[in-house]
Amino acid sequence: MASQKPTRPKARLPRGFRDRGAAEIMAEQKMLATIRAVYESYGFEPLETPAFEYTDALGKFLPDVDRPNEGVFSLKDDDEQWMSLRYDLTAPLARHVAANFQNLPKPFRRYQTGTVWRNEKPGPGRYREFTQFDADTVGTATASADAELLMMLADTLEALGIRRGGYIIKVNNRKLLDGVLEVAGIPLEDRERRGIVLRAIDKLDRLGVDGVSALLGAGRKDESGDFTKGAGLSADQAQRVLAFVAPDAKDEEAHLNQIATLISSSKIGAEGLNELEQIVKLLSASGYGPDRVVFDTGVVRGLDYYTGPVWEGELTGAVTNDAGEEVVFGSIASGGRYDDLVARFTGQRVPAAGISIGVSRLLAALRGIQAALPPLIVVTVFDKAEAAASFAIVQELRAAGLRAEAYVGNGKMGDQLKYADKRGAAIAVIEGGDERGRGEVTLKDLALGAELAKSVESRAEWVGNREAQKSVARSQLVAEIKAMLKGPAKGSP
Amino acid sequence: MASQKPTRPKARLPRGFRDRGAAEIMAEQKMLATIRAVYESYGFEPLETPAFEYTDALGKFLPDVDRPNEGVFSLKDDDEQWMSLRYDLTAPLARHVAANFQNLPKPFRRYQTGTVWRNEKPGPGRYREFTQFDADTVGTATASADAELLMMLADTLEALGIRRGGYIIKVNNRKLLDGVLEVAGIPLEDRERRGIVLRAIDKLDRLGVDGVSALLGAGRKDESGDFTKGAGLSADQAQRVLAFVAPDAKDEEAHLNQIATLISSSKIGAEGLNELEQIVKLLSASGYGPDRVVFDTGVVRGLDYYTGPVWEGELTGAVTNDAGEEVVFGSIASGGRYDDLVARFTGQRVPAAGISIGVSRLLAALRGIQAALPPLIVVTVFDKAEAAASFAIVQELRAAGLRAEAYVGNGKMGDQLKYADKRGAAIAVIEGGDERGRGEVTLKDLALGAELAKSVESRAEWVGNREAQKSVARSQLVAEIKAMLKGPAKGSP
Repeated sequence: MASQKPTRPKARLPRGFRDRGAAEIMAEQKMLATIRAVYESYGFEPLETPAFEYTDALGKFLPDVDRPNEGVFSLKDDDEQWMSLRYDLTAPLARHVAANFQNLPKPFRRYQTGTVWRNEKPGPGRYREFTQFDADTVGTATASADAELLMMLADTLEALGIRRGGYIIKVNNRKLLDGVLEVAGIPLEDRERRGIVLRAIDKLDRLGVDGVSALLGAGRKDESGDFTKGAGLSADQAQRVLAFVAPDAKDEEAHLNQIATLISSSKIGAEGLNELEQIVKLLSASGYGPDRVVFDTGVVRGLDYYTGPVWEGELTGAVTNDAGEEVVFGSIASGGRYDDLVARFTGQRVPAAGISIGVSRLLAALRGIQAALPPLIVVTVFDKAEAAASFAIVQELRAAGLRAEAYVGNGKMGDQLKYADKRGAAIAVIEGGDERGRGEVTLKDLALGAELAKSVESRAEWVGNREAQKSVARSQLVAEIKAMLKGPAKGSP
Repeated sequence: MASQKPTRPKARLPRGFRDRGAAEIMAEQKMLATIRAVYESYGFEPLETPAFEYTDALGKFLPDVDRPNEGVFSLKDDDEQWMSLRYDLTAPLARHVAANFQNLPKPFRRYQTGTVWRNEKPGPGRYREFTQFDADTVGTATASADAELLMMLADTLEALGIRRGGYIIKVNNRKLLDGVLEVAGIPLEDRERRGIVLRAIDKLDRLGVDGVSALLGAGRKDESGDFTKGAGLSADQAQRVLAFVAPDAKDEEAHLNQIATLISSSKIGAEGLNELEQIVKLLSASGYGPDRVVFDTGVVRGLDYYTGPVWEGELTGAVTNDAGEEVVFGSIASGGRYDDLVARFTGQRVPAAGISIGVSRLLAALRGIQAALPPLIVVTVFDKAEAAASFAIVQELRAAGLRAEAYVGNGKMGDQLKYADKRGAAIAVIEGGDERGRGEVTLKDLALGAELAKSVESRAEWVGNREAQKSVARSQLVAEIKAMLKGPAKGSP
C-alpha cells in the first residue's frame, strides 16, 4: 500500500549528524589554531585532500557488494566508478604520496585537518561526522621520526592547556606480541588469529583478565548471552599473552625481564624491543620522560595496518560528562607506524608513521577551552526612517574595534531590547529623536541588568559603582562604551 | 566477459576533485579569517550544519528517480532514506531555522563557511568541491537588513585588500521585471515563461542584444547548430524587456524614467521600485554610494528562490588567468532576498536575505594574497646515534619562536642539505663531532646559496655583505640565526 506523499518535508537532521553553534565552533577554531601553530613550528606543512576518494583507493572497503556502504558512505559516480567519503586522513595521504612520490621531499611531513565520515550506527555522543587532525612523516623508518611525533603530541597537549600529568602518551610495538606468539608456537602468517588476540588485549580495561582469558581461549559469553568466538589458544599460550600484557607486573623492570623471556629467540620480537628502546631513549634524552611518555603493552590499536610501533595519548584527569558525572576520558589521540600503505598502490614499500588527534573528542573533554566573541553592542532603531543614523553609530563603534550591530528587524523598542538580551549583548545604545536634538545617546548596561536579576543581594554594591542606564554625550560614545565594558575597578571604594 | 580484477588500485583522484598544498591552504585561511573578522564585527555569529541533509529537505532535487544524483551527490541511508551532500549553505540554513524557530533570536543572523559539493561535469578550473562563505539575516524584511549585507560585503572586499573601484556591487529587484512583464500582458503566474526571460537576460553579457532578443522570442540557434527554445514573447513584449534591461540608457536617471513608464500601474513593479530605492537611499546615507553599489537591471541571478532584491559583487579590475592573459574576473559574490525558503517546511512565511562569497573563486582571483609560513631552519643530523643533540637544538630554536625541524630521514649530509633546499629552508644547521667538542656549530645560508645560483653577477656584492656558511659559537646560535634571517641592513656599506 503506497503511503501518501507529504506536502511538506520535515525540518530534521539526518541521523547521527548535528548542527553546531557559535561557542563550540569558536572553541574548535582556537584548538585547531593551537595545534596548527605547534605542528608548523616543527616544520610540518598543511595538505588538503578532497572529501571523496575512489573506493578502491581507500583500501579497507572494496566494492565487493552492490552497495559498499559498510562503514563508509559510498556512491557510484556517473562513470560507474564507486567513490567513498574519507573515513580517516591516512588513506588519502597514502594515495597522495603514491601519486606524487617523485616530486615530494623525502622524508615528506604534512599535517591535515578535516572532516571524516563513518557510516556506523549513531548513538548518544556518537556521530557519523567528526574532525580529525593528523600529522605524518612518510619515507623514513628512523626512531627519530617516531619520537618526534610523540614529542609534538606532548607539546600540543600542553599548548592546549593540559598540565603535565594531566595526560600520558603510551607506546608499544606490535612486533613484541608477534614475538610472543611466535615463541608460543603460533606462526606469524596466521593473521586472523593474531587479529583476534589483538582485539582481545584491546578489551583488557573493560573485561579484565578473566574476560580476556576467555577471548584468548575458546570464547566468551557476555551478559546478554551473545557468544564471541575466541582465538583458540591453549592454556599455556594464553598465559604467555597475559604475562606479556602483565596487568600485575610489579614494576617496569620486572615487566621488561618478563618480556625478554617471552620473546627469547624470536627475531621479530627482538626487533620490536630494539625499536621501542631507541624511541624511549631518544625521548628521554630530549626531556620527554615517564611523566609524559611510557611503555605500555596494553596499547595495540584497532587498525590492521600498523606494522610496528603504536601509540596512544590519553587524558588522565577526571572530566565531567553530559550526565554531570566525573569520568576518566581516555584516548584522545593515536597512531603508529604503517610501512605498507603506499605499497598498496606502487608495490614499493614506503615507511611511514603518524599521529591523529580526535578533535571533536578532545574538544568534548576540554570544555574549559572557551573562545568567546568580544562583547556585543546592539544599536537600536528608534524610527525606521532614521535607520541610517543607527548605521552611522555602528560604523563608528566598529572603527574603534568594537563588535556592534544595528537592529535590522521590525520590532518596537521593547522587542529590540529583548532581542539584545537574547543575543547576550553587553550594551544597548538608544538614540531617541529628542536626544539626538540634544546631542546625546542613552547607554543601557545589559550585563549589569542580568547581574542584578541574578543576585538581588549585591544590588546595592553594584549600583554603587555602576549605573544600569545613563545618558551620555554623542561625541563621547566610544569612550563611554569602552569604560562601561571595563567595568568598575576591582576594590575601588 | 568479466575483466580480471587488477591486483593494485591506481593512485588517482576522483574526477573533478583535487589536492591542495600549503600555499593555497594558508592563503585561504587568511582570507577566511579576514571575512570572519568583518562579519563578527557586524554581530553575525557562526553556525555549522553537517555535510549531509535529507534529500527532500534540500528541496531543489527530490528523489523522483531511483538515484537522485542530478546536480547533487546522493545516497540511501540504511533506513532507506535518501541523503544528499549540501550543494549550498542556504538550504541547510532554511532547515535549521525551521527546526529551531522558537529558540532563535529574531532577526537571526548567522554566518557559515564550508565545503559544498556539486555533481556536475568537471572541466578546467571547474571543480565539484569548493568553499563558500555565507551570511544571512532571517526573520525580517527591512531594507536595512538588505543594505547591511551589502555594506558588509563592501567592507569585506576592502579588508581583503581590494581597493575601492576594484570591485562593484550591483543591485536589482526581480519585482521590477515582474511589473514589466505584467504590464506587457504576461501573467505573474506564468513562472516558466518568467524563468526563460530571466535566463535570457542573464546571458546579455555573453550573447548581446541580438542573442537575448532571439531568446525572448522564438528561440536561438548557436554556432554549433543547437537550438534553444525562447520565451515566445511578441516583438512588443520583447522590446519592453530589452528597454528594461536598457544596455543603451544614456544615464541612470533616463533609465529609471524608462522603467517607471514600463511598470506604470503594476503594483508589484511599484513595490520593487520602492524596495530598491529604500536600499540605495540607506546605503548612500551610510557612505556606500555609486562608487561601490549601483543599480543594475542586468543582475537577475540564476536561482529560482529569490523573491525580490538580488545582488552581485564583481571584481572590475583585470586579473591574470592560468594562460597568462588579462581577463575581467567578474562575479565573486551573490545573493538576494528569499522569503519562501523556510515556509517550505513550516507553511509560515519567514522573510530572509543573504550573501554568499565564492571563496575558492575569489582566492583564484586574488593571487596577491600571500600567507607564507615563517622561514624554516633545518637541523641536520651528523651521526644518527646523536639524534638527541639535534632535537635539543630545534627545541631551543622553537622556544625562541623560530620554525625548526630536525632531519628525521636516513640520508647522508649531502642528502640532508638537498632535502633542506627542497623544503625551501632558509638556514641549515650542522653540528659535527669536532665542532661539538669546540662548542661550535655551522650555519649554512640556503637563501643566499639560492640567490647566488640565480644571479652570478651579484655574487661579489652579496658575498661582501654576507657569508654563505659560517661557524658560530653554540651559545650564540639563536642570536646568529635571528641576525641571518634579518639579512644585511639595506644600504649598509
